[in-house]
This record gives sequence, C-alpha cells and structure tokens, in this order.
Amino acid sequence: MYPTSSFESFVERSDKFPLEKFARAKDLLIIDKNVLVKLPGLTRDWRFVYAVEAGEELKSFAGFAARLEQILELWKTPISRSSRIVAVGGGSVGDFAGFIASVLKRGVRLEHVPSTWLAAIDSAHGGKTALNVGGVKNQIGTFYPAQAVHLVREILDTQPEGRALEGLGELVKIALLEGDKMFAALIDGAGEKPAALLWKLLEPAIAAKYAVVRQDPQELSGARKILNLGHTMGHVFEAAYGRSHGESVTQGLWFALEWSRHKNILSSREWDKIRDVFVRLNLQRWTDQVDFISLEARSVLALLAQDKKMTADDKVDFVFLRTVGGPVVQPVMIEEIMLEGIRQGWVRGAI
Amino acid sequence: MYPTSSFESFVERSDKFPLEKFARAKDLLIIDKNVLVKLPGLTRDWRFVYAVEAGEELKSFAGFAARLEQILELWKTPISRSSRIVAVGGGSVGDFAGFIASVLKRGVRLEHVPSTWLAAIDSAHGGKTALNVGGVKNQIGTFYPAQAVHLVREILDTQPEGRALEGLGELVKIALLEGDKMFAALIDGAGEKPAALLWKLLEPAIAAKYAVVRQDPQELSGARKILNLGHTMGHVFEAAYGRSHGESVTQGLWFALEWSRHKNILSSREWDKIRDVFVRLNLQRWTDQVDFISLEARSVLALLAQDKKMTADDKVDFVFLRTVGGPVVQPVMIEEIMLEGIRQGWVRGAI
Repeated sequence: MYPTSSFESFVERSDKFPLEKFARAKDLLIIDKNVLVKLPGLTRDWRFVYAVEAGEELKSFAGFAARLEQILELWKTPISRSSRIVAVGGGSVGDFAGFIASVLKRGVRLEHVPSTWLAAIDSAHGGKTALNVGGVKNQIGTFYPAQAVHLVREILDTQPEGRALEGLGELVKIALLEGDKMFAALIDGAGEKPAALLWKLLEPAIAAKYAVVRQDPQELSGARKILNLGHTMGHVFEAAYGRSHGESVTQGLWFALEWSRHKNILSSREWDKIRDVFVRLNLQRWTDQVDFISLEARSVLALLAQDKKMTADDKVDFVFLRTVGGPVVQPVMIEEIMLEGIRQGWVRGAI
Repeated sequence: MYPTSSFESFVERSDKFPLEKFARAKDLLIIDKNVLVKLPGLTRDWRFVYAVEAGEELKSFAGFAARLEQILELWKTPISRSSRIVAVGGGSVGDFAGFIASVLKRGVRLEHVPSTWLAAIDSAHGGKTALNVGGVKNQIGTFYPAQAVHLVREILDTQPEGRALEGLGELVKIALLEGDKMFAALIDGAGEKPAALLWKLLEPAIAAKYAVVRQDPQELSGARKILNLGHTMGHVFEAAYGRSHGESVTQGLWFALEWSRHKNILSSREWDKIRDVFVRLNLQRWTDQVDFISLEARSVLALLAQDKKMTADDKVDFVFLRTVGGPVVQPVMIEEIMLEGIRQGWVRGAI
C-alpha cells in the first residue's frame, strides 16, 4: 500500500522479516525482548540493537532521559536526520521508539514492524507517538508517521494464538466504522482462526483507518474522534479489570453499541446483525457482564475524569453508532455515562 | 506581520506587554526570573506562572522530566490542544517552552515574547525547539512554530544595553544573506544606538529569515543551511571563549568572510564594503584576533567534530559569501577549517 498523504506510511506484507531491507549498518533496531527470544536470528545484520521490556513502564517519561542516554551511548555513529530507527514490537515499543525518532535531531527516519495484531491493525498507523507522565497515559507525544510499516507474519506469529483473538476487537471496531464492505468480509471470514482472519483483513482495515486519519491527521477538526468508538469505557474496563487492551475495547464496543440501541440511535435490526458477528467471532465472552464483578461508581468516575482531561470542556465526546459505517459523535456528561453503566450492570453504587 | 505559511508566526510589535491579549485564565506563562524581577507587574493577570532560570541548564534533558512534572502539577486545569503556553525569555526559555508545547498533548498552542534581541531577531522564529542530552547541545527537539511572536520593547529593554550590541551579530548575518536592501538600511542606521537600530530593523530581518525558512521549513532540502553563516566557527568560539552567542557569531561571521575573501569567493571590493559596516557598528572589537588568545588545535578539532555530527557524511557544509545577498554552501573537510583557523591566527598547534 502506497501512502496518499504525508500522514500515511508505506505498508507491505511479507511472511518473513525482510532482513535485506535493513542492510544499512548505521540503523538502530529497537526490539521487544520477547520477540528476540523467539527469533534470535533477527539481529544478525544489525550493529546497533536496543532490546526493551515491552509495557507501560517503557512509556514512563520518568525513565525516558536515562533510556535516551543509553541509546545515544549505544548508537555510536554520526546520527543525522537520514538515520533510521526500526521498531519491532507492540504498541508500547512503537510509541516509545516513535517518540524518540520524532525528537532525535528534530526527527530521524522511522519504520515499524509490529509484533502484535493490535499494533499491526491500529497503533503502528496514523503517526501517534506517546509517553506517560506522572502515571497519566499518553500525556506527551508527537504526530510522527513511520515512513514504512512492515507487516510480517513470522513476527506476528511470535504472539500466542490468544492474542489474535484480542486483535479482533479493533478489527470489529474499524469494520463498524468503515461500513458494509468490511463488515461483510468479517462475516465471511468468521469461521477462520483469528490470526488468519486478521492477516486477511489487515490491509482493508488499515486503509479504513487511513481514510479517517487523512481527514484530520493532527486531531484538530475532530474527524478523527470516531476512531475512539468503544474506547471511552474500554479504557475504564482496561484500567479496572487489568485485562488486555483488545479485550477491553471489545467490552467497550459492546457498551457503546448497547447504549446506541437504548438511545434508539441504532436500530434493533442493525444491532441484531452486529451482535451476530460478535457471537460468530467468539467475542461475546468479553461482553457478558455476568462474568465480571461490577465496578464501584466512584472508581469509574475517577477513571472517566482522567480520560475526560483530553477535552477542553466538561463533556466527553462519546462515539455512538447509527448503522454499520455510520458513527455519531455526541458530547455527553460523565454522569450520563455513569447512569448508562449502572443500567447495563457494569457499574454499581450511587453517583 | 501575517504568516504566509504554517511555518511562520504572526508577528507584532508593541511598546508595552499586551496583557489584554492574555486574559485567558487557563494559559500557562513560562517566564525568565530576571524579566520577572524587572517587571513584576507582568504576572498580574495570570493564574499559572512557571518562573525559570534561563541558560543551558534549563535545556538539559536530564532535568526535563522533573520540570515537566512540576509544570503539570502547577497547571491545574484541564489541558487540551487548545491550551496555550506563553514564553517570556531569551533563546533557552523559548527552546524549553517550545519543546514542552510541542509534545504536551501532542502539541498545545505556543506564543513567544522574546526578552533578548537575539531571540527577537532569530530564535523565536522558524519553529526550532531544542534540548541538550548528555552535554550535547540541541540533540533533541522539534519543528514547532509559535502561533504568535510578540515583540515588546519594554521586555527587550529589561536587558542591559550591551546585550543589544550582541544582537547586531545576527542582524548583520541576516542582512548579508538578504542583500542590498537590508544592507543599505544597516549602513543608514549605523549611527544609532544598537537597541534603536535593532528595533527598527527587526521586522525586515524576521521577514528575511522567514523567506529562507519557507523554502525548507524542516531542514530537508538544505536551503535553510545558509542561516548557518558565521555559526560553524561561531559555535567553536562560543564554547572556547565562553562569551555570548551574539559576540561569537560576529567572530564567526568575520572568520567566514575572511575565508571567503581568501578563497576569492568574495571580491575585495565587496569585503571592504562589509568590513566598513563592521567598523561603523562598532563590532570590530570582537573580530580582531589580537584581543584573543589563540585556541589549541586539538580542542578546536573536538568542538568542530561535535558540531559535525549534525551532518551524515564526513564533511561540514560551510557557508561562504560571494556577494552581499549571495551565500554559497560548500562542503569542506574539518582539516580545511583548521588550516584556515591557523592561517587567520585563531588556532595554534599542529593538526
């Protein structure tokens, strides 16, 4: 896939890691240790390798200065704006490496090789980099699209099969935003294994994301907000239950769809159609609140308030769905989200 | 002055600080302590004020995480991309505040109120922000133009008169790049006090800089390199003699012009014309190497090599001058610069 704007990356798929593309001795490889353990041969041609422990700690700004000094100590070559950082890993590795690439010498070249399905379908694309400050997620960051994103099956297969199931959450999200074409492809492929389905639909999913990003690359007009579908409560679930981003987004999607239905924004016919796909994809296990203890209102409020800081006014731009392919952004009060949480059974207690 | 591209700032001049423009209670003021001491009334309308000690230490990345946490602790308001940081200070304050503005929430609004002539004429414009890592200057940074730059006479006058003389170095540089029009204005105004001359020529000088920046806002094509006139050796002089940036750039300009003449790039007639302006502006005191102890070759080499890291190959793009308004960029070996340094008497010892 060739980029059609400076906010998109050149995207290509391959079965094996394209080592031959990285013969430039001066590049820096930033790689998730877990990937390296499974594919130790990857670093064969690299002089400069910085292996990291993936996770939120990697994104902590408190430790960032020390890490940057380590990298400059290690990367013993004249670094210029044409130097290149190649990041192999999931979302946290991409965010970390992307931020470094965006500020080092005011910007060096950056290429991503996502090792998780979530990164492959979502975070490696669209140019957002981020670090956490004082425990607040993504408090600082830059818009800095990678020049290229290499989707490599052998890298993605270093993840356990269960992680592919998590990737389906973002796949369903983007299909719901894109419309009938991707949604039909999702139904068609529902019988396949998650990894196979994701591999097949990666490119249309990425194209659908770029179609949104292109309208609002730096999040100024608000057009990009629809990508937040399922994420408002998804982030709450992620923090409260400590489960993966993918599972939590699936839960958050369910919450948003159920609320859209209750508000009569989404028709019951459309809701039935979507629910059917959740079942076929085996996602309903994360969406049935009977399996979860309900959350205390106070802690949900605190988590929403933290997320709320992202907007200037006192409301949250919540993404509802009218039809498949028809998102609707509506500002809502935090209290409304709480009441809906109680109604759906996720939240207990007084607000 | 209205911007003609997204890489330029709205620029305006006023005698007094335009407090009324900053009535938004949610903005953050980052201000040089020395300015605050002289104009304590400035902070009257501000809820959030972060006063800093100007200088290179402020730009140290090692201390940056702690400073950012202090700022987030202090700036107790929902911060969004439409929040605004106003920086009152010289180059280091602008670089520091600009970097923060460029990464906080992936970019908040930024306005500069330069308190030094050097910042007013140069560093506040063109969008470069920078921090130092492990002792290396400007190792990281971003391209992030301020929305507005307010040139305020009462702020600039908080500097001692001697500092205005330093500002003349950058003024002469930009006049040499721009051409006969600015050069004639410089000659016309040579009898005035430095501050008065700078105040008069600020806008054409800034316009001349933007004309260059516009061709190569992110330093990709190389067109912006001509702004480095006088700076290659200027940085060496600055580090070696520990004098101000303005004085050092004047010295560095002299070095570049003298070399241009020696190489017959610059005609002797043109050189005489330029030299005459140096004398009229009372700048020759910094350019006569008799007043300076010559520098040891080894330390000059080390300083040049550090600067050299900015380019990918083994050469330095040195900016020569053919005529007033006619810069010429030529790649030279570091050894050539050293030999010229010895020839001019700035450098001693074997290379």
